Amino acid sequence: MNYKMIGRLLSLILTVEAIFMIPAWGICLADGADVAARAFLIAIGLCLAVAALLYLFSRGAKRNFFAKEGLFCVGFSWVLMSVFGCLPFWLSGEIPSFVDALFEMVSGFTTTGASVVSNIEGLSRGVLYWRSFSHWLGGMGVLVFLLAIVPLGSSDGNSMHLLRAESPGPDVGKLVPKMRQTAAVLYLTYLGLTVITFLFLVVDMPAFEALCTTFGTAGTGGFGLKNDSIASYSPYVQNVCTVFMLLFGVNFSIYYLLLLRRFREVFADEELRLYIGVVLGSILLITLNVRGLYASIWDALRHASFQVSSIMTTTGFATCDFDLWPSFSKGILLILMVFGACAGSTGGGFKIARVLLVLKGIRRNISQVLRPQKVQVIRVNKTPVDEAVVAGTNAYLCSYVVIVIVSFLLISLDGFSITTNFSAVLACFNNIGPGFDAVGPACNFSIYSPLSKLILAANMLAGRLEIFPILALFSKSLWKRK
Amino acid sequence: MNYKMIGRLLSLILTVEAIFMIPAWGICLADGADVAARAFLIAIGLCLAVAALLYLFSRGAKRNFFAKEGLFCVGFSWVLMSVFGCLPFWLSGEIPSFVDALFEMVSGFTTTGASVVSNIEGLSRGVLYWRSFSHWLGGMGVLVFLLAIVPLGSSDGNSMHLLRAESPGPDVGKLVPKMRQTAAVLYLTYLGLTVITFLFLVVDMPAFEALCTTFGTAGTGGFGLKNDSIASYSPYVQNVCTVFMLLFGVNFSIYYLLLLRRFREVFADEELRLYIGVVLGSILLITLNVRGLYASIWDALRHASFQVSSIMTTTGFATCDFDLWPSFSKGILLILMVFGACAGSTGGGFKIARVLLVLKGIRRNISQVLRPQKVQVIRVNKTPVDEAVVAGTNAYLCSYVVIVIVSFLLISLDGFSITTNFSAVLACFNNIGPGFDAVGPACNFSIYSPLSKLILAANMLAGRLEIFPILALFSKSLWKRK
Repeated sequence: MNYKMIGRLLSLILTVEAIFMIPAWGICLADGADVAARAFLIAIGLCLAVAALLYLFSRGAKRNFFAKEGLFCVGFSWVLMSVFGCLPFWLSGEIPSFVDALFEMVSGFTTTGASVVSNIEGLSRGVLYWRSFSHWLGGMGVLVFLLAIVPLGSSDGNSMHLLRAESPGPDVGKLVPKMRQTAAVLYLTYLGLTVITFLFLVVDMPAFEALCTTFGTAGTGGFGLKNDSIASYSPYVQNVCTVFMLLFGVNFSIYYLLLLRRFREVFADEELRLYIGVVLGSILLITLNVRGLYASIWDALRHASFQVSSIMTTTGFATCDFDLWPSFSKGILLILMVFGACAGSTGGGFKIARVLLVLKGIRRNISQVLRPQKVQVIRVNKTPVDEAVVAGTNAYLCSYVVIVIVSFLLISLDGFSITTNFSAVLACFNNIGPGFDAVGPACNFSIYSPLSKLILAANMLAGRLEIFPILALFSKSLWKRK
Repeated sequence: MNYKMIGRLLSLILTVEAIFMIPAWGICLADGADVAARAFLIAIGLCLAVAALLYLFSRGAKRNFFAKEGLFCVGFSWVLMSVFGCLPFWLSGEIPSFVDALFEMVSGFTTTGASVVSNIEGLSRGVLYWRSFSHWLGGMGVLVFLLAIVPLGSSDGNSMHLLRAESPGPDVGKLVPKMRQTAAVLYLTYLGLTVITFLFLVVDMPAFEALCTTFGTAGTGGFGLKNDSIASYSPYVQNVCTVFMLLFGVNFSIYYLLLLRRFREVFADEELRLYIGVVLGSILLITLNVRGLYASIWDALRHASFQVSSIMTTTGFATCDFDLWPSFSKGILLILMVFGACAGSTGGGFKIARVLLVLKGIRRNISQVLRPQKVQVIRVNKTPVDEAVVAGTNAYLCSYVVIVIVSFLLISLDGFSITTNFSAVLACFNNIGPGFDAVGPACNFSIYSPLSKLILAANMLAGRLEIFPILALFSKSLWKRK
């Protein structure tokens, strides 16, 4: 293990985090929220102090970097960022328990949006800003951000290990030949779409609320500023959110293809087609199922579209208490929770690209059982998929199922209903936010014991980083010295 | 497709079914239950008539048989057996709706034990006998029975395709060189263990009740004779059931090894160790969790052991309403529902052998992500496992998850709670019987609509036959003429 290089990266990450806390500190000062301002100042100071120590330790680091280091670095950096990032919540006393503050921060960075705060409107604006901004930062990933601005390694492979470990989806292709440029293209697209979202929202919302809602939408996070999430905003705002949540759930390489005017490839993309198909199908079915609950079919359509878009992209905003919807609609939402958004987007979940691969794998399996002698290759977008990717995807689903089962069992100790526990694990692991029953959109996660909160926070990290960087932290072989 | 050979097999199966209905008819005659007796007589007549037609059609059948025919034959024969087997329920008027009767029969043959009958004690003894006997027949499979007594094919491969398709578990090894002898050894072991169970039970139960309970235990089925399942029997009877359910959940090749005095292999068997470990661990945790609900720790232990053994082996008997237990215990039971019993036993579920392979696969995957260059082989019982089996197991889990999701969504249309629907699908697919909430051990499946009942019945068949024979029935390529 190249500890010095890891130290160097962690030092950079804490520095970036400290810099990004400055606007929140500024808001606290402007609002005269002295306690919160002091909390941010202490947090910034601690970040910089530890960053400086790590920098001293890491002098003369060699720049070679392997898969193992990449995984460890990504896993550890997210834990570290969350621990330092939650300090302002805790020190300001606005979230009095450290475990609660940590849960809230992990929920922010992993773009989950599950909250333990019962009265969100009672938080100071600086804290609200930092809470929402963490979605934006976590959406694309801090290491991807670093890759985009800092020359980290001499060779391209080094950065590849980091980008692979932090980016969502089964397979990170290089958009452009150099990894650093790929990271830059991703972040510029992200920034561009974010600005457009803000401009649409600010038409009908106060600037601060529009900014925070934009962060929540762009990162597909879901922390709102109101106790009722997005319900009290105008239908215009809700519809803007619906559209942009869906756009941020698309694989970002699609936007790159659009910029290059390669429209044919965009239309032929099987993941995109499946994504659009599932979204439209779910909206249709839910609209028909809930139309009796609303004044008009258009109201039903608006709520159905918003909730489908919010759950499918794993954002977690809500315009109504969908826990009161009929079982069929709740069933659809529960399944969308697992599916998640496209690979290479800011959304979480199992990812549509993986769903596609699993479905194609099953189809192949049936026809292989019937005709064992025939060799059959799985194709996506007409390109044969490497068998290692197919096997990896199936193995991923298996790990996913095992982690869901174990987590579900552990949080069952708190005694809530099966629906509550099961949907809580799914909502956290898939980075959605609200679940059903006692963790439904009208409730929050404060009901759980500190142990369950830590387990759910670990689920969020495992979900955001796609399991392996977090599992790697617990692997014996990682800690063994050679 | 060799339709004539399939016709010949189906003819044999219906003949066997007719013969096995005769004792039930006899019981009806002895009890003077005329309506039921006439119903059985009509059913026997219809079975024999169709069998005769199929026999005429299949004259001069060639005996070559491929995987495709094997799958189709198994899938179709189970559907046919259920359709003819449910006729006595329906014609006697004891289960007035045909869909209900079919559900009950499929539940019997697949050893599920989920019932739509609210007042079981109101059924005539002949119907009760046939209902319980279907568990015994379905436990080991009718085709395996045929293989054991009829010389079906000249080559060994023909029978292998049938045995593979009907036997539970990822891999059917040959116990003895000839398939026909393997089938005979399996059925003799099964018969022997069944007789022992009956002798233990008849000590403290009327003979008829002991016989029916034995069928339910041996086939890991779960149809009882009382509305409260096994709750009103003595602790002795309950403990006998606990032990024998567990014994019938063990891979039958273990008993063959025991007979051959190859004890070392038995003790080293990793599936058996995992099975015992999970059983003991679950009993311990649940006993501790529910001890406050019972008069003594021994009562808690008895109920915990019984329920763990009943759910884990997918039998589905109950001695208490475990839906009233705390969430943690219910969570453990829910997970045991998925795990199921050992491969090569009469139990259903995902099978412990597969759980073992999935867990080993995940461990390998983590260490492969950390060290991509190292080639790593999965070993079970110190023997390397073929990569095709590992990939097949992962693909099986994927199919399993997809079918559970789709079924869950479809039965959600009936409007019951998420817990009800989810546990109903798990309980049927894994051939257990009772679920939680509105399909808990104190309730039954009569609440669902006919459509949902058919979906759940299809789940039972897919679970019992391990998905592919049933999926194959829907496959286009199967019906295509070359």
